[in-house]
Amino acid sequence: MNIEVIKFGGSSLADASKIKNVAKIINQKTQNETNVIVVVSAMGNSTDTLISLAKEMSNDPNHREMDVLLSTGEIVTSTLLSMHLNYSGTPSISLTGTQAGIRTDDVYGRAKIAEIDGSRIKEELKTKKVVVIAGFQGFSDKQDVTTLGRGGSDTTAVALAVALKARICEIYTDVSGVYTADPRICQNAIPLKQIGYEEMLELATTGARVISARAVEVAAINNMPIIVKNTFDSKQSGTIIQTESNMENINKVRGIAHQQKVGKITIKGVPDSPGIASSVFRPLAEANIAVDTIVQNSSSDNLTDLTFTVSIEDLVAAEKVSNSIVKNIGAKEIDSADDVGSVSIVGTGMTSSPGYAATMFEALYNKQVNIEIISTSEIRITCVVKQSNVTKAVQALHDAFKLDVE
Amino acid sequence: MNIEVIKFGGSSLADASKIKNVAKIINQKTQNETNVIVVVSAMGNSTDTLISLAKEMSNDPNHREMDVLLSTGEIVTSTLLSMHLNYSGTPSISLTGTQAGIRTDDVYGRAKIAEIDGSRIKEELKTKKVVVIAGFQGFSDKQDVTTLGRGGSDTTAVALAVALKARICEIYTDVSGVYTADPRICQNAIPLKQIGYEEMLELATTGARVISARAVEVAAINNMPIIVKNTFDSKQSGTIIQTESNMENINKVRGIAHQQKVGKITIKGVPDSPGIASSVFRPLAEANIAVDTIVQNSSSDNLTDLTFTVSIEDLVAAEKVSNSIVKNIGAKEIDSADDVGSVSIVGTGMTSSPGYAATMFEALYNKQVNIEIISTSEIRITCVVKQSNVTKAVQALHDAFKLDVE
Repeated sequence: MNIEVIKFGGSSLADASKIKNVAKIINQKTQNETNVIVVVSAMGNSTDTLISLAKEMSNDPNHREMDVLLSTGEIVTSTLLSMHLNYSGTPSISLTGTQAGIRTDDVYGRAKIAEIDGSRIKEELKTKKVVVIAGFQGFSDKQDVTTLGRGGSDTTAVALAVALKARICEIYTDVSGVYTADPRICQNAIPLKQIGYEEMLELATTGARVISARAVEVAAINNMPIIVKNTFDSKQSGTIIQTESNMENINKVRGIAHQQKVGKITIKGVPDSPGIASSVFRPLAEANIAVDTIVQNSSSDNLTDLTFTVSIEDLVAAEKVSNSIVKNIGAKEIDSADDVGSVSIVGTGMTSSPGYAATMFEALYNKQVNIEIISTSEIRITCVVKQSNVTKAVQALHDAFKLDVE
Repeated sequence: MNIEVIKFGGSSLADASKIKNVAKIINQKTQNETNVIVVVSAMGNSTDTLISLAKEMSNDPNHREMDVLLSTGEIVTSTLLSMHLNYSGTPSISLTGTQAGIRTDDVYGRAKIAEIDGSRIKEELKTKKVVVIAGFQGFSDKQDVTTLGRGGSDTTAVALAVALKARICEIYTDVSGVYTADPRICQNAIPLKQIGYEEMLELATTGARVISARAVEVAAINNMPIIVKNTFDSKQSGTIIQTESNMENINKVRGIAHQQKVGKITIKGVPDSPGIASSVFRPLAEANIAVDTIVQNSSSDNLTDLTFTVSIEDLVAAEKVSNSIVKNIGAKEIDSADDVGSVSIVGTGMTSSPGYAATMFEALYNKQVNIEIISTSEIRITCVVKQSNVTKAVQALHDAFKLDVE
């Protein structure tokens, strides 16, 4: 079978007329002999409505129940889209995550896909139906509903594409692909024609919200090409994410990612002994707090300062954990800030060419943007700056690296 | 195990504060050593919201998809209630119809329960959890979601009570039991202490909306006692529905039911030959139109008029079917009316005591209420009257049979 998996996000499905527009895109796909699997998110902000209902029930709603509750959002969209497909002449059936055979572990709220049993999907595809699958969800060994956490529908789509040996996975969103920077704050940002998995992963991890990092990871491991396209302008070719083959794009800054708001914590006066970093980051991991940037300055008199950033939603929890860490390891105190953000430049071969770092720091300096933390990977340089400087920094870097020139 | 099944309707669960109130009632139940199974409807009018979304997708939404869509309403309530029970110290778990083992046929929109596999429910009850089950739904042999149609949650509750050998099934609603007449239009109506299955069935079929007729039927067959109680005044003893053992209540009018609006169709000039009634009512049944009252006048010159009533929602569809029936059987024409309603008196042994009919017709005549159709059963007399006379008729009959005296 010539299978394509197509995923539509919540903004593409926010109301009845948008769902009908999505049905049109799918109808066109089925013209040529393609078997189409559609993965949908919940309508617009319906998930937020469900979350606030849950918060009225309990300040910390039972995680199992929360997953069942949230899974209904995607189910609603899948049935509505399937109804309109049937109405407009395209035979279609909706499947929940459970019916689609998406088996996960039982870590509610951020379950990981263990295995996909695609037999029901294949059965429906054979009868030439478009199969519309509720994204973001699966089921545990106990037949209980689980959700995959943020960006879960992207992950559902890529994992289904891999499991069913699809030709490609298309992610439809409300912008025309992966941009050189967020077009909402950088007017001359342009969509990239293509980008490699590693670069996309770094962009997604450091703030590009067009596709979830987890989904890119699954695609990279399984070498599944992804196209990011615009639901509202589907003639645009979009951005293809795949193993980078274009020599020209090596040693070049490909994009700027940013996070408008991050939380920053410094643990001061940490005794500089072997294993100390693990004593700090193990408890954070156990509290399910994802740490972004980590910086440890070289120590003087056997004491060092350890700084890291977390997502702004996790800051309060991270402060709590950090305070108990301070006691456990005999550090001095913590210092936290919620008024910072981050900007990152991403491109392969960056660390081997020191010119990129210099250009980045110079561009920020020229705009009086003070750098609080620097962190680098093979293909990325991230600077943590004051929140008020984030937009200015993104624009300055976009200009400095001439990203508006294709 | 000492099991009780308790069902709460949509008006009892219409918002967060009402769900919390329901949790309080359940918490009290669990004080004594009772295993509690709760069945819930969708919140307030959330089902209507889902239906109107579906109607935007298609004027005749795919029935399978419709069932999946509507089932989410009850799932939402079940998780919210379970969250608040857990929060307020009562361990609880929600189950969907599928998880609760409610297997049905595959007639979407009005599936019938085939069998209940209560193993998962029992497993959860053993760990002393309150099991909250999404009403109105089940699953087919294909593992697809089905819904049970109108009053489905009542049926879920009674069927679960039977399958799990519960002591009793309590139906919580927004009035204090089964009344002698609808208290909204008959001020001196009073709640009945008890009523037999057959009488309740007749009352429910002819307009009493406090409990669905189907649920009463299941209870009657399995001799499961039902108590109808008021969610907002749970100290009231409510009405118990069970095999009538009280001799005093035999040969007595127990209650007045009414339907504010029904559709009436007369097929005129029907050739009076054997099998003709079946040629009329078979096509209506095949179109899933439930016919209430049927009257055939004795014929003159081998032609007869056949009159029947249907629910007002089915009138347009019934007219369509009737017109094709007219052609098929060589009848003359149809005549339809949407300005009629019905009033019924219900009580055992009625047909054996002609006095009841006389009192009924006299009471209506005294108020200048013209009777369009009369139909009777063993324990019921129904009159179809003009819509504008329904309220007046109910009050007149309540007075005539002195139902305000206990």
